[in-house]
Amino acid sequence: MGESLMEPRTGTTLPAPGGQRGTEPRQAAGAPGRRGPIGTQGDGGVAPAEGHEAVMLLERARAEVDPVLRAALGSLPGPLRRIALYHFGWERADGSPAEGGSGKAIRPALVLAAAAALGGPEARAGAARAAAAVELVHNFTLLHDDVMDRDATRRHRPTAWTVFGDADAILAGDTLQALALRLLAQDPHPASPAAAARLADCVIELCAGQHADTALERCAPAEVTLDGVLAMAEAKTGALLGSACAIGGLYAGASDGEVEALDAFGREAGLAFQLIDDVIGIWGDPSRTGKPVGADLAARKKSLPVVAAFASGTPAAAELAGLYARPGDEGDLDHIALTVERAGGRDWAQGEAADRMARAMQQLARAVPDPEAAGGLLALAEFVTRRTG
Amino acid sequence: MGESLMEPRTGTTLPAPGGQRGTEPRQAAGAPGRRGPIGTQGDGGVAPAEGHEAVMLLERARAEVDPVLRAALGSLPGPLRRIALYHFGWERADGSPAEGGSGKAIRPALVLAAAAALGGPEARAGAARAAAAVELVHNFTLLHDDVMDRDATRRHRPTAWTVFGDADAILAGDTLQALALRLLAQDPHPASPAAAARLADCVIELCAGQHADTALERCAPAEVTLDGVLAMAEAKTGALLGSACAIGGLYAGASDGEVEALDAFGREAGLAFQLIDDVIGIWGDPSRTGKPVGADLAARKKSLPVVAAFASGTPAAAELAGLYARPGDEGDLDHIALTVERAGGRDWAQGEAADRMARAMQQLARAVPDPEAAGGLLALAEFVTRRTG
Repeated sequence: MGESLMEPRTGTTLPAPGGQRGTEPRQAAGAPGRRGPIGTQGDGGVAPAEGHEAVMLLERARAEVDPVLRAALGSLPGPLRRIALYHFGWERADGSPAEGGSGKAIRPALVLAAAAALGGPEARAGAARAAAAVELVHNFTLLHDDVMDRDATRRHRPTAWTVFGDADAILAGDTLQALALRLLAQDPHPASPAAAARLADCVIELCAGQHADTALERCAPAEVTLDGVLAMAEAKTGALLGSACAIGGLYAGASDGEVEALDAFGREAGLAFQLIDDVIGIWGDPSRTGKPVGADLAARKKSLPVVAAFASGTPAAAELAGLYARPGDEGDLDHIALTVERAGGRDWAQGEAADRMARAMQQLARAVPDPEAAGGLLALAEFVTRRTG
Repeated sequence: MGESLMEPRTGTTLPAPGGQRGTEPRQAAGAPGRRGPIGTQGDGGVAPAEGHEAVMLLERARAEVDPVLRAALGSLPGPLRRIALYHFGWERADGSPAEGGSGKAIRPALVLAAAAALGGPEARAGAARAAAAVELVHNFTLLHDDVMDRDATRRHRPTAWTVFGDADAILAGDTLQALALRLLAQDPHPASPAAAARLADCVIELCAGQHADTALERCAPAEVTLDGVLAMAEAKTGALLGSACAIGGLYAGASDGEVEALDAFGREAGLAFQLIDDVIGIWGDPSRTGKPVGADLAARKKSLPVVAAFASGTPAAAELAGLYARPGDEGDLDHIALTVERAGGRDWAQGEAADRMARAMQQLARAVPDPEAAGGLLALAEFVTRRTG
């Protein structure tokens, strides 16, 4: 699954999950007052939102968190700073300034939106450092995962290890983890120790997820279970989205129950995102994803739709096993994609994504019963799972 | 320089620094009351101590910190726990229990000794978690440095990456850093946020030191300056010993000035240790160090005595440059060692080590003016720089 788990591809619209699952049209985001009650959408059916509210929230998060990030990175010793600024897309490899490219700030936006949802503007304003810490952890995992997965491209640029070498990319990642936890340790906010403990816990879960991912990729398809891949995806993708929401809640002084519900909301939304990202990885639009369609299949990755197809017990599953046993045969990607689809992998993934989003909505309603207050978090969850921005 | 910077070799006695520098015999450690005033030994000359006190302090630290470490490692997800327990020497590669081997606990002992020196037994008792955190950070850097340096042996066992692969060793290291900072974040002690910030800062410095080390090893000898190598050694070795002492001080409620003096004490002692370790790496006894004499020379490492020899401007320096330009020629290690010695590298390193120890003593006297209270820290500093245990 690799890097697609960690960094959303940009600007791709996914067909709304449909089929046998009921859909219930909802108002577009961007007008919170017109949004229906959260958690009442039935079996996960939610019509595509426009995403304007999410885009605004992401831009605002970027504007609030970037100064904290730039100050934190600016405090690093020269060589490590250079690698980090390259990775963030703020410098070129030669150290000259570059424009943008540092990703969408989804995780910082979730921290800030969760803080705002439960504590209003004041809590939001107090959580900028925590939001930056979460973004630093995310980028630490990207740097290390790219080394381990030998991924050569990230955000349409060569990955840090291809430019600076493995050792420097590992060291820059180590540094970003330390920087994240230093930001929290130096934050006088009363929630910062609990947030730091939660973020450190999340790092451990992210590492376990990455371990499981690399282990799964070494397994024969028959040895891989759907539960195993879902657990891996939850650890690798859901955990940090959940932690972002939970940390925002902590900074708003939320109760334990609210914090856990926020965590579960982020985890379920993260799994929905991953399912959809895997669908895009097989059937998406290459001009919009920045990654050729079929790359996951060409690499014989055991992404969620593929594992579901293997587990289907259909004749197509048997055919797929044969196709997956012939690595390197890239001429046949359309045929493999069709076989995954015939084995039910695509339908399963879209249905499961809709289920996960429904569960996310239920958790959100538990954490933030007021739909108006929950609007930002909902818009962000819809944004990451639909990518209609 | 590689792993020798990070993990002291065991049980080797170094000749006391001598030559042009004055030595002033001192009482053996183990009887704090008989120790002379600290910081009054003149130009760094201190006679070898027996090290019994240090051995007792290390054993006591091990006994106090191991339960915290084992509980922390025991909380990890299965696969990461297994790698960590292997690295600590507590399990074999197959997961069966192993005896000992987890290193000497010098850093935890420094944390506890510093806390005791400034806050008595109560402060010491409250600092066990912080001591474990420092040891976890140390081991995180060992795991990653071994990957980067391709070192295959650590504590007389195959390194984690040779057993579990690069990815798992990187992930286990990431996990130990997170575990260290989680221990501090969950510590209700009022000093824990300041300690966490300091430890995170130290991680960044350790990474900068490792970066400098790998960069230096890629440089031609003529491009390497003695100041550059000393700065690298301070970051890579001195920083964590300094942080260990400073964190112990924080847990004793020490003043800013005392904490900084403790940090400086640990740094200077760390540099003295590194200088001596590099001397042993060239001229030491292989049966006692666990590493063949001359391994650093065989690898053409730019260790401190070698860089000093290059910088000497002597005819021997020119000869050494020629010898270093022929990598792989291992038959001539005795001749290279002799050339480093003729260029003054050995004398310089021993003299510089004595100077650094003198400065360490001065800083210790600043932090802990009562020689009796400072006895533990002094014994540990002598132990790491003499290895007479």
